[in-house]
Amino acid sequence: MAAPVRVLVWGENRHEQLEEHVRKIYPDGMHTTIAEGIRERLDDRAEVRTTTLDEPDHGLTEQVLAETDVLVWWGHAAHGEVSDTVVERVHQHVLSGLGLLVLHSGHWSKIFGRLMGTTCTLRWRSEQDRELVWTVNPTHPIAQGVPNPIIIDAQEMYGEFFDIPVPDELIFISSFTGGEVFRSGCTFRRGHGKIFFFSPGDQDYPVYHHRDVRTVIANGVEWARPEVERELPTLLRYETGEFHRGHDYTGPIQEPAE
Amino acid sequence: MAAPVRVLVWGENRHEQLEEHVRKIYPDGMHTTIAEGIRERLDDRAEVRTTTLDEPDHGLTEQVLAETDVLVWWGHAAHGEVSDTVVERVHQHVLSGLGLLVLHSGHWSKIFGRLMGTTCTLRWRSEQDRELVWTVNPTHPIAQGVPNPIIIDAQEMYGEFFDIPVPDELIFISSFTGGEVFRSGCTFRRGHGKIFFFSPGDQDYPVYHHRDVRTVIANGVEWARPEVERELPTLLRYETGEFHRGHDYTGPIQEPAE
Amino acid sequence: MAAPVRVLVWGENRHEQLEEHVRKIYPDGMHTTIAEGIRERLDDRAEVRTTTLDEPDHGLTEQVLAETDVLVWWGHAAHGEVSDTVVERVHQHVLSGLGLLVLHSGHWSKIFGRLMGTTCTLRWRSEQDRELVWTVNPTHPIAQGVPNPIIIDAQEMYGEFFDIPVPDELIFISSFTGGEVFRSGCTFRRGHGKIFFFSPGDQDYPVYHHRDVRTVIANGVEWARPEVERELPTLLRYETGEFHRGHDYTGPIQEPAE
Amino acid sequence: MAAPVRVLVWGENRHEQLEEHVRKIYPDGMHTTIAEGIRERLDDRAEVRTTTLDEPDHGLTEQVLAETDVLVWWGHAAHGEVSDTVVERVHQHVLSGLGLLVLHSGHWSKIFGRLMGTTCTLRWRSEQDRELVWTVNPTHPIAQGVPNPIIIDAQEMYGEFFDIPVPDELIFISSFTGGEVFRSGCTFRRGHGKIFFFSPGDQDYPVYHHRDVRTVIANGVEWARPEVERELPTLLRYETGEFHRGHDYTGPIQEPAE
Repeated sequence: MAAPVRVLVWGENRHEQLEEHVRKIYPDGMHTTIAEGIRERLDDRAEVRTTTLDEPDHGLTEQVLAETDVLVWWGHAAHGEVSDTVVERVHQHVLSGLGLLVLHSGHWSKIFGRLMGTTCTLRWRSEQDRELVWTVNPTHPIAQGVPNPIIIDAQEMYGEFFDIPVPDELIFISSFTGGEVFRSGCTFRRGHGKIFFFSPGDQDYPVYHHRDVRTVIANGVEWARPEVERELPTLLRYETGEFHRGHDYTGPIQEPAE
Repeated sequence: MAAPVRVLVWGENRHEQLEEHVRKIYPDGMHTTIAEGIRERLDDRAEVRTTTLDEPDHGLTEQVLAETDVLVWWGHAAHGEVSDTVVERVHQHVLSGLGLLVLHSGHWSKIFGRLMGTTCTLRWRSEQDRELVWTVNPTHPIAQGVPNPIIIDAQEMYGEFFDIPVPDELIFISSFTGGEVFRSGCTFRRGHGKIFFFSPGDQDYPVYHHRDVRTVIANGVEWARPEVERELPTLLRYETGEFHRGHDYTGPIQEPAE
Repeated sequence: MAAPVRVLVWGENRHEQLEEHVRKIYPDGMHTTIAEGIRERLDDRAEVRTTTLDEPDHGLTEQVLAETDVLVWWGHAAHGEVSDTVVERVHQHVLSGLGLLVLHSGHWSKIFGRLMGTTCTLRWRSEQDRELVWTVNPTHPIAQGVPNPIIIDAQEMYGEFFDIPVPDELIFISSFTGGEVFRSGCTFRRGHGKIFFFSPGDQDYPVYHHRDVRTVIANGVEWARPEVERELPTLLRYETGEFHRGHDYTGPIQEPAE
Repeated sequence: MAAPVRVLVWGENRHEQLEEHVRKIYPDGMHTTIAEGIRERLDDRAEVRTTTLDEPDHGLTEQVLAETDVLVWWGHAAHGEVSDTVVERVHQHVLSGLGLLVLHSGHWSKIFGRLMGTTCTLRWRSEQDRELVWTVNPTHPIAQGVPNPIIIDAQEMYGEFFDIPVPDELIFISSFTGGEVFRSGCTFRRGHGKIFFFSPGDQDYPVYHHRDVRTVIANGVEWARPEVERELPTLLRYETGEFHRGHDYTGPIQEPAE
């Protein structure tokens, strides 16, 4: 049997400290609730840890990342406080094979923007809209085990135009009471890493206690698990007929000249 | 009739200064030859200018970019010398609607990496391989007017795995004498901008004098031309029922809280 | 200047004859109203004709199709009455380069099913839902000139899961008062033909009088116009080094054996 | 642990009977060799059976299909002899969830054409070209465990333009000695079924004895395995607010009218 997938849930953990109403919904922090949901679904198929922004290096040292298969990211109020060094480190790990789940307001995190190359902006409103999450890719592993649609009684509205690259796979489209729609479940392959963006989930609503949302996140974790040994794609020179062994790049003008 | 498309060809212009054999092929600089090819094909449907790395601001001031519809980028030896400020400026313009053609070794330019979010590495060899450029999307406007395949007698080899996001549209696949293959013509939409990557073209070979290569580049320019008024996608709040007028974002915790 | 695009609007024309309330909305038939909308938008850039199911050969003879650039299809109650011979003829023309717009209930037409290879089923309800048509691909030519969202006050609901292949380009996603969502604007390239499916439009509602719907249909016509000479893709043998001239296929076992 | 995947390898089995040189390479029929390769790789994770064209119903009765998870299809010389009734039956099963692998010359089988909606033509030559199979999607499960490129010493050439819909995922691109390229590994989702087309493999060459080809086919089988209970997508009416239970369609004009 396959080894358990090593999951790290990263939480910004600011709303929980600053806002009483958030603390009521997520008394141990949102990251803890998200981690519980993954454990509940994957059981001994996963080893789930958590860390937060306020840890040294935001809890994302080289060693921690090397020992993580899938990183789950929730941030919102403090995207700007995430250090560029850490973002660069995570970026390199994702391109090398680290799986990444970006949740909800993580759409505006530095790491998601870096990977997408776009503004990742959208339209929004926090007025207790009902969100319906519709499956448009019913045979995708991430869509298994949930009804079509998933019904979330109260949620923040996220609407189009969502400025992302066209997803490799569009799995879910949400609608909201107000009539807006949103591409709420999207996969992207970048380098050797697999990325799943899933928008349901907000600090003001108990969305991470929702059974179907938990199932989707757990499915996403299993899907994003690396298929290959972690390795950054590298530019190499290959002699004619030498298909499987390349040479290091030595610069654009020196010999052998590219 | 539509106004002429305003094209700016950006050339690094270093090989031409440093290497005699390049100067022989491109006596007035590669950017000049590329610009000639576009003029030759589009005639009065285009206004084509050039600029180079050594100009102040690399010739890419805010005003110049605002007056450009499509930017064509050729760089190789000096990617690292392009200032981050200029890259950021070009990035914002592309997301706002500026069309961008990235040619050949521009795969490793800062601007392409920023837009793609990946390493953009590949395998390569400069040994005079013949390149055949095969059309796999025969009804795409960029593929019109060229034979299938385009035959380029001598070229640098670029091979897979090419670490880019899955293109929105794959138009050309190249093969090389040595047997390698490469996704050589790819489109990407990012924000309000359209991007066309086309790999044939190298300082050591007279590829930008090739009639079919010129046709493809000119087609790419016409395709990448902006459809909409230049405007950066922006995060806005929309009240229920207020579909067409949004409000500026005022931060994650202040009222109204996101 | 380019020659006018030759458009043929095909109407089933049954509801208009059988149902008084439809005749009130579309007194000259839905096909006539659709054709008017295209003429209104494209003016002298298009030559627009109409034909209907009850014509000999349903008005779709070999000659008529050969003289058409883009065929617009509206059918609903009588899909089964369309002869397989005519469907086969239209199919061959689309694969050879004829542009095709499939509107609304045409999702269940024989020709659309033949081209998609799937059931093309969906969920539906006709209860005067408001339909909002959201743009998710703002730089696509088909999305130009319409607000985001388009507001259609009353429409039949079409919802997911819509059993189609993943579209080459997803341009519009609709929501309905009841909360359903639908991929309402999709492009597909098949053979040498371009296909645009656009779902707004129903016999019970005056949708083809809606200005934005008319704009989208006209944009679709211009987009679907053939880029290449009409020719069916054909299996050919090519000798080594003979890239541009192939030989007819002579069967799987005879010499030269495949 | 998951139940073994039930695989059925369908062989046309004509070349083996008619041509001595094919019988030498595949003495028990190509289907037997293909089946052996899958058993070798998946061991007790698969139950692999074979059947052929000459069986009653071509060995593809309703019951056999109902007891199959993944169907592997090899045909070439006798596509026309496959009965339309059986093709229709397989088509319905694929849309309901049956996994399908189409190998090599199966590109021109009735079932592949029915699912794709295009001509599925290509360019070809049988002159012992070397085929190199390059991975362009290194994190896809189907690409695991094989070198990049796979080297096949002698093969029939299949080249572009290959008239298929744009694949949902492009995994492999092949090149041939003569310089042609081909999209040789492609996935498609249709209805509830997953389809993998893989072109290496021909009756004149021992390709199905090749270790890497066997790995890819076995990977494909595991990938194509159904995720959901077999069920044909069906058009249903849903009342407002009734998201999870639909009503049978009762026709276009009767009440309730669509």
